[in-house]
Amino acid sequence: AAMSKSARFGCLCCTYDYETPKTLVIQSTKIGCMFRLVQFVVLLYVVGYVCVVRKAYQERDSVISSVTTKVKGFAYTNTSYMEPRLWDVADYVIPPQGENSFYVLTNVIMTPKQTQSRCPEVRTSALSIQTGLCVNYSATVQTCEVLSWCPLEEHTKLPKPALLNAAADFTVLIKNSITYPKFKVNRRSILPHINSSYLKKCEFNRSTDPYCPIFRLKNIASEAGEDFQDMAVKGGILGIFIDWSCDLDWGAHRCFPKYSFRRLDSKNPVNNVAPGYNFRFAKYYQTPDGQESRTLIKAYGIRFDIIVFGTGGKFGIVPTIINLGAALTILGLAPKVCDWILLTCSSKKDLYKKNKITHLNDDDTESVSN
Amino acid sequence: AAMSKSARFGCLCCTYDYETPKTLVIQSTKIGCMFRLVQFVVLLYVVGYVCVVRKAYQERDSVISSVTTKVKGFAYTNTSYMEPRLWDVADYVIPPQGENSFYVLTNVIMTPKQTQSRCPEVRTSALSIQTGLCVNYSATVQTCEVLSWCPLEEHTKLPKPALLNAAADFTVLIKNSITYPKFKVNRRSILPHINSSYLKKCEFNRSTDPYCPIFRLKNIASEAGEDFQDMAVKGGILGIFIDWSCDLDWGAHRCFPKYSFRRLDSKNPVNNVAPGYNFRFAKYYQTPDGQESRTLIKAYGIRFDIIVFGTGGKFGIVPTIINLGAALTILGLAPKVCDWILLTCSSKKDLYKKNKITHLNDDDTESVSN
Amino acid sequence: AAMSKSARFGCLCCTYDYETPKTLVIQSTKIGCMFRLVQFVVLLYVVGYVCVVRKAYQERDSVISSVTTKVKGFAYTNTSYMEPRLWDVADYVIPPQGENSFYVLTNVIMTPKQTQSRCPEVRTSALSIQTGLCVNYSATVQTCEVLSWCPLEEHTKLPKPALLNAAADFTVLIKNSITYPKFKVNRRSILPHINSSYLKKCEFNRSTDPYCPIFRLKNIASEAGEDFQDMAVKGGILGIFIDWSCDLDWGAHRCFPKYSFRRLDSKNPVNNVAPGYNFRFAKYYQTPDGQESRTLIKAYGIRFDIIVFGTGGKFGIVPTIINLGAALTILGLAPKVCDWILLTCSSKKDLYKKNKITHLNDDDTESVSN
Repeated sequence: AAMSKSARFGCLCCTYDYETPKTLVIQSTKIGCMFRLVQFVVLLYVVGYVCVVRKAYQERDSVISSVTTKVKGFAYTNTSYMEPRLWDVADYVIPPQGENSFYVLTNVIMTPKQTQSRCPEVRTSALSIQTGLCVNYSATVQTCEVLSWCPLEEHTKLPKPALLNAAADFTVLIKNSITYPKFKVNRRSILPHINSSYLKKCEFNRSTDPYCPIFRLKNIASEAGEDFQDMAVKGGILGIFIDWSCDLDWGAHRCFPKYSFRRLDSKNPVNNVAPGYNFRFAKYYQTPDGQESRTLIKAYGIRFDIIVFGTGGKFGIVPTIINLGAALTILGLAPKVCDWILLTCSSKKDLYKKNKITHLNDDDTESVSN
Repeated sequence: AAMSKSARFGCLCCTYDYETPKTLVIQSTKIGCMFRLVQFVVLLYVVGYVCVVRKAYQERDSVISSVTTKVKGFAYTNTSYMEPRLWDVADYVIPPQGENSFYVLTNVIMTPKQTQSRCPEVRTSALSIQTGLCVNYSATVQTCEVLSWCPLEEHTKLPKPALLNAAADFTVLIKNSITYPKFKVNRRSILPHINSSYLKKCEFNRSTDPYCPIFRLKNIASEAGEDFQDMAVKGGILGIFIDWSCDLDWGAHRCFPKYSFRRLDSKNPVNNVAPGYNFRFAKYYQTPDGQESRTLIKAYGIRFDIIVFGTGGKFGIVPTIINLGAALTILGLAPKVCDWILLTCSSKKDLYKKNKITHLNDDDTESVSN
Repeated sequence: AAMSKSARFGCLCCTYDYETPKTLVIQSTKIGCMFRLVQFVVLLYVVGYVCVVRKAYQERDSVISSVTTKVKGFAYTNTSYMEPRLWDVADYVIPPQGENSFYVLTNVIMTPKQTQSRCPEVRTSALSIQTGLCVNYSATVQTCEVLSWCPLEEHTKLPKPALLNAAADFTVLIKNSITYPKFKVNRRSILPHINSSYLKKCEFNRSTDPYCPIFRLKNIASEAGEDFQDMAVKGGILGIFIDWSCDLDWGAHRCFPKYSFRRLDSKNPVNNVAPGYNFRFAKYYQTPDGQESRTLIKAYGIRFDIIVFGTGGKFGIVPTIINLGAALTILGLAPKVCDWILLTCSSKKDLYKKNKITHLNDDDTESVSN
């Protein structure tokens, strides 16, 4: 009677029908325990791993960053390679601006007073145009004459120890300003609780001063597992990694930078070309008679790349719902597993089957009652 | 009989068995309304929040970018600090290439004609090597003699207003080319609908010309809440943020850059070292007798960092399925909640229980029929 | 009896109750097949698309990178524009350090011997201050006199073909070191199986040498669909994209860079200002009498931007569970769909309804038995 009534009202009426599955409650300690155990494991995964360890309920954002660096220090060189000379920041930091990659000159091969002219070739692969003439390179050796910046750079032995190995004691101040645009969070590597007087005398130390943004160059090298004096001879690249990964649910004020250091160029001699790090640049002059002359500088040194990375996480509804949904679905597998055990392994499986399952054969016209 | 038949065919046969839960339909306006309400709330969350607000059905990709900048403008200075001089781009933009970070010189302390020699110390912390002698610094003061680039840089007062405060009226053209590699979308900050004649005379204005890629430096500062003339004295860092976050389902042609501006260095005097932004560089000369001489320039100025960020989103099957799955699971909680209310709070709970639940005690051999 | 017993024990007892839905098994080949088909499609999506194609079970991390570049080559120019001259790396690579963006000079307009002085204006929009006087620009033309770096840069025609079109044959070595911080994976563009002797003579070729990190400049241009000689005249920007996207489940040693090339500046003349790529810089000299003089160089050339991107993926429990959960939920829709078909379209729908659904009308005091 009720059915025909509902049929009469049709769809509209149906919207107020509430459909709920008919269930069978089995009072068995064994199967009940097993069921609760499966539920407990899933819950442990959700609360323990997903929430506490992975914080999967958080939305993520990548850091965007701006870096300023300022190197301090000077060195006095008095060697046989060169006249006595004092080197200051304007001499050895290239480029001078102090962005997220700075370079400290540690060793040089200088070829002063080069002019566009003709001179004897130094080696066959020289970067020059042959004139076709042969000239005396030295008292005993004749080589081809070339058109080039003359005199050519000599294959002199690289100074060892490095000319400016005093650079080990230079310091660098790294100012880093970061933003998590999605969460509107801004932070600086000079943390709010640090005052000017501390900044004037502090020096980064992993255990005692982990938030001092002033680094001694030799300490950067040793933290990266390298010896500064060794690197200074042929040059190299050191990465200063600043990790700003943060749990922003606790507020931006608990977000601190974590510094780490690693050598970025390869030391492996088998699998390498041009080991170390060097580049050539020139200082151009004009001689009193108006001719251009230059000092070619093959500059060996250590490039410091400041690499800022990190992901910030903050509670978000969408990832929470997604993880909750996934966990509930896995939780929903528990009865399926228990049912399967119940109906195949249990000693009373026939009893359970009879009560749980009604079979209906397509060929029958009526339900099969057990 | 049907059961034994199915048992005989075993597993193979079972693959064509269709198992469906037996359900109880309760025709109650109250419980039906409640059920529909819960469903409606979940649906609202899915359609409204997940789809419309968060667009969680989209796959994401991070922008990769290349920037070119070109500053225009010139300034004429005629002050007591320096000889009358015209400054053009080659003088005040450092480095000249115009990449994603450019620097405009606004104030200088120049120390011309420095040579490697001996001179009286200016202050005790000078960057120099003491010779051990005492010499006359001025008529009344004696200081130690040092080996250094002499004469040393004097602690002169910084020009105020800044020497090149005319830089406020310089303009910069920012060309930005971006790619979303996952979606193979390329865009440029010079949008396709902008023509050359507009570009020759336009200037960025948040309300009237939001897509003109030419910016007046003083406007960048004022958009960042700073005064250009103030900043010009000691220098600073201004961030030009270009947000390319886009909904690419509507086509790449509806993807526009959003510009914002913020000062990146700290103005806070308590928590700072070396406020402002400056660096030292030198122009090297050769005197007619071949000696090296240099002009040391302590350059104060404003560094503009162009920071491009953004995530592009486009419909993706995987995130859609994930969000749909999560929403359906949450939707699946609705009957559990309604069941609980039905079986505990409802006035007819006993009636519902009797019809919904069959109890089976492990100790019984037969089902308990109510 | 069992019910009252369970009621007596209350909640504590209930924890060992196991509730399982009562089900109806319909033995119908048609409906069974349909059900299996739906399940199969969902499974195919999960295994085929989600796992194999999209690898959605993986956690992702973005690459962080450091780049070193070293250009090799020299050019000899002997044209009417300029005195014969040999150009080496120190002359044409700006800046010299070789970071992730390097610039190769290909064409120049030089204005030597500029000094701060007075000279006739070249055009009205000149970057200079007018003195108010009129002077002879040439025998026939009079222009205003200006205070500026004089003589002014002339609007000379750009050399075509480009002065340094020999730059096409220069090569560049790109050393790229990357890190996936989340997975602690480091890789270099010089792959471990590449030895020094191969590196000394190899050259990148998409088909024969796809992992050789040495590129000939003209090949970069042609891979980007451009002609180097054309670009060299007015300059331009070429992007060298290095894609490190990797499936790290197979180990970091199977992670290789994929190179691609694209022109980044716009060639479209309608929608452009300052086509090509050029910038002005100056070399500063001091005349014997101490006056500053400079050579202004308007440098046209090709900037190469090395853009490193990619996401690494590695098996992660959280995304696996999420995708599994979503798939299972979608799988859980299969019976709903089948039920709906069964109860509305099937010829035996009344039979199925009678067996599956029990109706309970709120107005009734007892269950409605069909």
